[in-house]
Parts: sequence; structure tokens; C-alpha cells
Amino acid sequence: MEQEPAAFTSSFNNTSPATENPQPITGNPQPGTEIKVFAPATVANVVCGFDVLGFAVDEPGDEVVMRVTDQPGITISKITGDNGRLPLNPAKNTVSVSVQHYLDSIGRTDLGLDIELHKKMPIGSGLGSSSASTVAGLFAAKTLLGDERDAAQLLPFAMKGEEMACGHGHADNVAPALLGGFVLIRSYEPLDVIRLPHPTGLYCAIVFPEVDVPTREARQIIRNKIAMKDAVTQWGNIAGLVSGLFMQDIDLIGRSMQDVLVEPVRSILIPDFYRLRELAMQAGAVGFGISGSGPSVFAFARNEETARQITQQLQQHLSSLKIGSQAYVSTINDAGPRVVV
Amino acid sequence: MEQEPAAFTSSFNNTSPATENPQPITGNPQPGTEIKVFAPATVANVVCGFDVLGFAVDEPGDEVVMRVTDQPGITISKITGDNGRLPLNPAKNTVSVSVQHYLDSIGRTDLGLDIELHKKMPIGSGLGSSSASTVAGLFAAKTLLGDERDAAQLLPFAMKGEEMACGHGHADNVAPALLGGFVLIRSYEPLDVIRLPHPTGLYCAIVFPEVDVPTREARQIIRNKIAMKDAVTQWGNIAGLVSGLFMQDIDLIGRSMQDVLVEPVRSILIPDFYRLRELAMQAGAVGFGISGSGPSVFAFARNEETARQITQQLQQHLSSLKIGSQAYVSTINDAGPRVVV
Repeated sequence: MEQEPAAFTSSFNNTSPATENPQPITGNPQPGTEIKVFAPATVANVVCGFDVLGFAVDEPGDEVVMRVTDQPGITISKITGDNGRLPLNPAKNTVSVSVQHYLDSIGRTDLGLDIELHKKMPIGSGLGSSSASTVAGLFAAKTLLGDERDAAQLLPFAMKGEEMACGHGHADNVAPALLGGFVLIRSYEPLDVIRLPHPTGLYCAIVFPEVDVPTREARQIIRNKIAMKDAVTQWGNIAGLVSGLFMQDIDLIGRSMQDVLVEPVRSILIPDFYRLRELAMQAGAVGFGISGSGPSVFAFARNEETARQITQQLQQHLSSLKIGSQAYVSTINDAGPRVVV
Repeated sequence: MEQEPAAFTSSFNNTSPATENPQPITGNPQPGTEIKVFAPATVANVVCGFDVLGFAVDEPGDEVVMRVTDQPGITISKITGDNGRLPLNPAKNTVSVSVQHYLDSIGRTDLGLDIELHKKMPIGSGLGSSSASTVAGLFAAKTLLGDERDAAQLLPFAMKGEEMACGHGHADNVAPALLGGFVLIRSYEPLDVIRLPHPTGLYCAIVFPEVDVPTREARQIIRNKIAMKDAVTQWGNIAGLVSGLFMQDIDLIGRSMQDVLVEPVRSILIPDFYRLRELAMQAGAVGFGISGSGPSVFAFARNEETARQITQQLQQHLSSLKIGSQAYVSTINDAGPRVVV
């Protein structure tokens, strides 16, 4: 057995992030100092935890190379892997905007930083692409500055990036990207995030069908009013899922992965969603659902081999529909961002 | 530290309870054999877990004395403590109806049983009064018959009693009364109940204001349609509460005890509810809310002394409003029903 990831809880208010831990950050990295950071993709919602739950995977993820310059301010010198979709203008890029908020909050506007962003995962895939980039940037800046606060303290800045990327400062991608593992966002006001344990040896199979489902549009089709009885079903399931994570009970996790509220509408945007589910379950998935707002789908599996069979089945079916896809098989990422040597 | 109550999960379908464990129950208790069983009061909902969560307390509770007779069928010879409110007719009493369902399911209609029901808690108080009686009756019959199945197997029969008592076969009182501790009802179809751990040393303060709030009416004022954003808040909180129970994190339990959906309407039926909350929190409560459909209210406290101070404050305030009340201070009951010697 691997070591069980520690569960922890931290609570802070995102209206005043800088005042919570007012330690001066006096690190003075020399121009030319460089660091490369990887941050993981994330699966938000986890079927029954709409807007409150997410987890990080080992693969895919984004990389940021950050270099100290001799001119105050942030520049972006290069972006790769984005097919020209992301802005080099630092006032419009979520990575630089988040890092700028962070520098402002610690009073380090004297610092000059240049960013290279290497997208190693599809944009608009429902895998927390912007979160991975933002978290990589923030973690790079924190590390360069020798800021030793807990990574969780960066969460409010990462949420600023999300606000820019998708119109709302959600945390269900950035929190697991930053903290690793499964993360519950119990509350936004005040921000209260809780890291949850998970069964060891749990594998995640992810397939991204190459169709376009912008997050904003996917959010707009969610109903504003729902039936109380459906909400009760949903919170029975989220409570069951959380229990299954703590109890390392993979069957219970699977039984709890049902969504009567969001999936029925969002699945419309995903090609042949219910057939994909059927194929995944037949191939041995513990549970199956939409990753974030889609179009990526994910499944849990008890081992790597099953996870591979799931992605194979789903890709084959998408292929028969003339839809290209990308697939990933990964364990849960418990570390969050890391320096790449 | 006391021993941590084991978490367990069991799953069965309440549409066919008898077929799941078709062991013949051949015990043949002699006429005159008698047993006395206590079953605990329960707090359903636990603020943010409407219809899916409940826990059992050590005090109060009901007692059933069950005696084997020489005539097949169930009789009720005596009911005490009910002020004449409960029917002696075995076809109309939830205890005998549940026990009859149980006997039918195991093919033991040959058996004659007489029931004495001693109500030791107020009826219509929101403390699972009918559940406590029903569970005591079922556990008495099971014990007399030497039926060694897990107590959880009695749940579908206890739910039959609830269906009769309040018009719907809810499990959020009967499940914790039967299993003890905190119980999550993840799903009703199929029935899937999960026993949750809890922090050791957690105390519960209960105050029953002597006003009448019938369960049926309390249910009817609940809205059928709710806002998605409120539902998200609610399931963030239930997920937080469940996490707090597993993590033995009393602060997290307290932070999660918020209900934006049911409490705002049900609290109208409880005298000066928000002032009662204020008084409880000032006296050191971890969290405060309505027990089941009310009018009883409950609070968690870190020790017995604080729990007593809470009940004292609340009773004093109710008294100033010329409302009589009953109060209980108790630890969590982890055993469920027990034979009283």
C-alpha cells in the first residue's frame, strides 16, 4: 500500500486573501534565475459534486518556465501547444494575471518575471486546462521568491485566473490542481477547502472527444430551478461519494457516481454520451461521467489495465463516429504542482 | 479515547427485503418467554442532510416488553406514557404492523406475540418517537426468535412502520435507531445505508418545546422547487459534514451545519428559533438546528457541561415565552437497540 494522503482542512476568506498571512516575502532572486514547474489536469464535479468537488491526475498537465528579468513587471515570451489560441498580452493571459495578483498582494511589484507557457493538454477540454497553467505559474513564482506558505494560500490568486477564464471564480479545478488529490470546496464565502483521502490504487481513464464545448455555454444550459427531490438524491450521492473516499470503498464510490441534475443536460453536448458510459461500464469502470463541463469524459478503474481497456473502447467508438480523441490513463496526483528538473 | 465505532456499508433493495437473506428462522420460543428492549431517539437531517442523514442518542428512548403467547398473531396489551394517543389495535399501531411484516417475511405467522409499549419520550417531538418504538419491537422479535442476521436487515420492516406513521417510508430516523451512530441513507431505490464514524466525546443537547408540529404538515411546507445555487451550497455542506465526521474535526462539523433550504421554512413553526440558535451558540454549541421536522432543536457540544448549559439557556428562554419544554443531554448512541435486563 502507498502511504495514505493526509486529509487536511484549511479555511480562509477569498475577499481578503492577502491579510490572512501577512508575512513579508523578501526573497530576492537574481535576474536569469529560472524554474520549470508542472501542474496537473483536474476533473471537476466528479459526477455528483457539481461545483464542490474535483481531483488531480498525474497526466496530462501544463508546464511553465519562469525566468527572473531585470525589468519590473510580467512578460510572456512564448506559448507552445495552444495553436495560437492564448494571448501573449500579460494583461489578458490568466497565468500572468494570477501571478500579478499574487505579486501585488505581497508587495513585490519590484520583481520582473518572464513566462513561457507550454500547453501539454487540450484547451477547452473540460480538464482544467487554464487552472493547470495558472497553478504552474503561481507555484513557479512562489518557489522563485522562497515563499514558504502552504500552497493552499495561493488559491485565491488562482481563482482570479479562473474568473478571467470562465467568468466565475470557481475553485473545483484550481483547488485540486494546487493541493493535489481530491478536494472538496465546502463553501466559497468564506472559502473553505478540504482535502479528502482516496483509495490507493485508484486509476482514472480520461477521453477527450475533439468537439468544442465552451465552459460558458455549458454552464448556461444548467437549469436555475431544480426539484427538491432531485437535490436530495444528489446530496445523498455526494455524501456517499465522500464516505467512499474516506472508507477506501471503491464499490460505494461507484454506486454514488450518479448525477440526476447536471449530466442529463450537459451530456447533450457530448457525442453519444450514454453509449460511451455503457462501453466504459462494460469494460469494468467503477463509475463514469463528464469531466467538468465536458466534452472530456472520465472513468475510475481498479487497475491500469482496466483503465486502458476503457480508453480503448471509448476511442474506438468515437472513431467509428468519425470523431478524433485523446486519451489519458493516470493515477490520482496527490502532490499538485512540482518543480521539473 | 473510546474505541472508534466501525464504519460499514450495507446495501439492499427495499422492494424485496425478504429475498435478500432467505435464511429460515426456526427459533421456537416458548409461551411466557419475555424480553425488554430499549431503542434510542434519533435526530434526523442533522441540519444539512435533509432526508439522508440521522444519528441516535443515548437518551431519551422507548421500551418494548414482548412476550410469547400461545395464540398466533400479535396483540398489544398495554401502552404507557402516550397520554392515550397511540392505538392498541395491532392493525393500526406502527410497532405491531412492522413486527407483523417481519414475521410474514420469515414465514413465522405461527408465532404469538404480545407487546407492551412504554413511551419514554414525547410523541410528535421530531425525535423519531415512532421509529424508536418500532425498532424496539423489531429487535425484540428478532432476539426472541434467535434471528442472527445483522440488525440492518430489519430496516425495510422498520420503514414500513414509518410509512404508516408519517405517510412516507423514510429511513433517516429508523436507520440510526436500528444501527446506532450516524447513518447516511445514500439511496432509497435500492436502499443503501452507510454507517459513519463520529468524533469521540461529542455531546448532543436536545430541547423539545411543547408545541405541536405534526410531521405531515412540516413536510408540506417544504418547497418542491429550489434554486440550483442553494442546492450547491447544501451539498457542499453535507459533504463537509460527512468529512468532519470521518476526520473527527468538530470545527468542520460546526461550519458545515448550515441549511439554506429547509430550515428557513420549518423554523417558522418553532417558537423564536433564531433566538434559540443565538443562545445555543453563545453557550458554546458547535452547531445548532431543528431535529427532524421539529419542534425539537438540538446542538452539538464538546463536553457534557457545555451541553447542559445549552439546554439550560434554551429552556430558560422558552420559559420566558411561557412555553414548557423537556431537555436531554446525551452522547451519541453507537449501539442502537439493546436488551434491558
